[in-house]
Amino acid sequence: MEVKWEGIRSISGTSWKMRTIDWEDGAVTLIDQTGLPKEERVLKCSTVDELVDAIRNLRVRGAPALCAAGAFGVALAAKNGEDIENAAEILKKTRPTAINLSYGIDRVLEKASNGKTTEEIREFTLEEAKRIAEEDIEVNKKIGEHGAKLLEDGDVVLTHCNAGRMACIDWGTALGVIRTAIEQGKEIKVVACETRPLNQGSRITTWELLRDNIPVMLIVDSAAGYLMKKGMVDKVIVGADRITRNAVINKIGTYSLSILAKEHGIPFYVAAPLSTFDLEKEEKDVEIEERVPNELIYIGREQIAPLDVDVYNPAFDATPIELVTAIITEKGISESQSL
Amino acid sequence: MEVKWEGIRSISGTSWKMRTIDWEDGAVTLIDQTGLPKEERVLKCSTVDELVDAIRNLRVRGAPALCAAGAFGVALAAKNGEDIENAAEILKKTRPTAINLSYGIDRVLEKASNGKTTEEIREFTLEEAKRIAEEDIEVNKKIGEHGAKLLEDGDVVLTHCNAGRMACIDWGTALGVIRTAIEQGKEIKVVACETRPLNQGSRITTWELLRDNIPVMLIVDSAAGYLMKKGMVDKVIVGADRITRNAVINKIGTYSLSILAKEHGIPFYVAAPLSTFDLEKEEKDVEIEERVPNELIYIGREQIAPLDVDVYNPAFDATPIELVTAIITEKGISESQSL
Repeated sequence: MEVKWEGIRSISGTSWKMRTIDWEDGAVTLIDQTGLPKEERVLKCSTVDELVDAIRNLRVRGAPALCAAGAFGVALAAKNGEDIENAAEILKKTRPTAINLSYGIDRVLEKASNGKTTEEIREFTLEEAKRIAEEDIEVNKKIGEHGAKLLEDGDVVLTHCNAGRMACIDWGTALGVIRTAIEQGKEIKVVACETRPLNQGSRITTWELLRDNIPVMLIVDSAAGYLMKKGMVDKVIVGADRITRNAVINKIGTYSLSILAKEHGIPFYVAAPLSTFDLEKEEKDVEIEERVPNELIYIGREQIAPLDVDVYNPAFDATPIELVTAIITEKGISESQSL
Repeated sequence: MEVKWEGIRSISGTSWKMRTIDWEDGAVTLIDQTGLPKEERVLKCSTVDELVDAIRNLRVRGAPALCAAGAFGVALAAKNGEDIENAAEILKKTRPTAINLSYGIDRVLEKASNGKTTEEIREFTLEEAKRIAEEDIEVNKKIGEHGAKLLEDGDVVLTHCNAGRMACIDWGTALGVIRTAIEQGKEIKVVACETRPLNQGSRITTWELLRDNIPVMLIVDSAAGYLMKKGMVDKVIVGADRITRNAVINKIGTYSLSILAKEHGIPFYVAAPLSTFDLEKEEKDVEIEERVPNELIYIGREQIAPLDVDVYNPAFDATPIELVTAIITEKGISESQSL
């Protein structure tokens, strides 16, 4: 099914009360992240098909936000009188790498199993999805409190992709740590890697930080090593899509950053909720999503490579746990060696 | 002066006899690299102003090609009856980092000093510029012969930016080594990093390799480390814009690649003509060109970052000599430690 999207409203000028993804008037509403920073539009998904399209095309993305997206998706199926088990299967298949998507879906399914009537199932699924969204904010605030202890006044923190408010319901994981540190009165500057090929760093991270008046400087991904060598980076904080026993799976480029940080003696932190952990698995058990060649051949309407070139486009990579200085969760900071 | 460019002809379907930059009918002709891979057009520069614009806007780029561009520029000034010393100054200021530009200009100026009449100066400058172009091809072929010894049948070679035919007059430095190895019957595959922000890898390297039927796979810059970890890269070969006593100055991202190669035990080679060497200088003496923020805010007409974001956009970085396994020149292969 091809979905024709029309924004239901613009978020320009609105306060941050708008969440990344939410439930409103019997539908899922979300900030369409593919339009940023140029077009600030809110979309409404009234069917699971529409939400599936939104997830596949990264209109909503980021591991914690996908947790809520999956949860709201099941609630939407229940509301529309669809088979929720079937909807759950379809939703889980949209993106293979982030564990949080399945986690959110499974939590809602479990609550649904207590429902004896269609009405109860509708009610329980929506309640649980809303609870997941609320918890995400609380969890991020706690991650922020724990992580902020690691940041000193004057730090320049390099981040990759977007592990901010726009990857969650609100506040953010990696950027949440920075927000909390700033709230505590510390002066923190952010270096944002643009994060090819979909430019979540240049499109989303810079946009959300500028809206909060947090100083941010944009660089190309390949400049990170040079900045570290010049002493322009004090710490690295990234998010995670899945944390296995031996590796952190996150946006492509994270692994390179971890090597560069080690080489320059710079702490390398991962900020993620416990729902990102999948400690029964190892790196080799996780499917790394490979996305289409066109992400490297076009940017919007601009063709930047030959149409017939071979492309290898893994969306994520795996950073060995031993390269991670510490993982910041809602329960505290764990040295990665102690997992 | 704003130059309105119109292609004088397309190079589609033409053989490779067209050089990257050449002298034709009293003007400098060049393949407009800003149009690749989509628009294959040849431009004609009849004035130094036009050539200056072409160099500044990277219509012609690559250290060895800039050597010839500077040389032809002085010849063009002489042909048009302009002050060649003044033209030389203007040309030298177009790009600060590659030493080859000054080298080409100075060689032609020296020959000009032997001219007693305007006619002789015209003749000597053009002769010398043409000689520089011819020498570049011979030099590249020799770099290819020496460098090919380092490549084995079946190697996958990762390269950054474009150090190919399109960075020179013909054949190429890093890609010249690969071309020679393939000519010798070795099977070589290339991994091309897209090379943000101007995408010389995705736009130019892939385009020129596909035209020669050399297998090439395009990746985002930040994926290089992940490919190395997966054992998908046997060697790295890059070009250079300037080689000082203690560092190789090359396209931003080269330094990160050198660290990643070391971490994974992968040889890291630099292929460059002796005209790239500036051994009286150290890294700290070289101006690293910083280019405009718009290179990260737009790709063509597509806006990919907030208009008011701070951007740090160094075009080059510096790789310490000790991270370079060997430098391949027209005189042979030198272990970097012996410089």
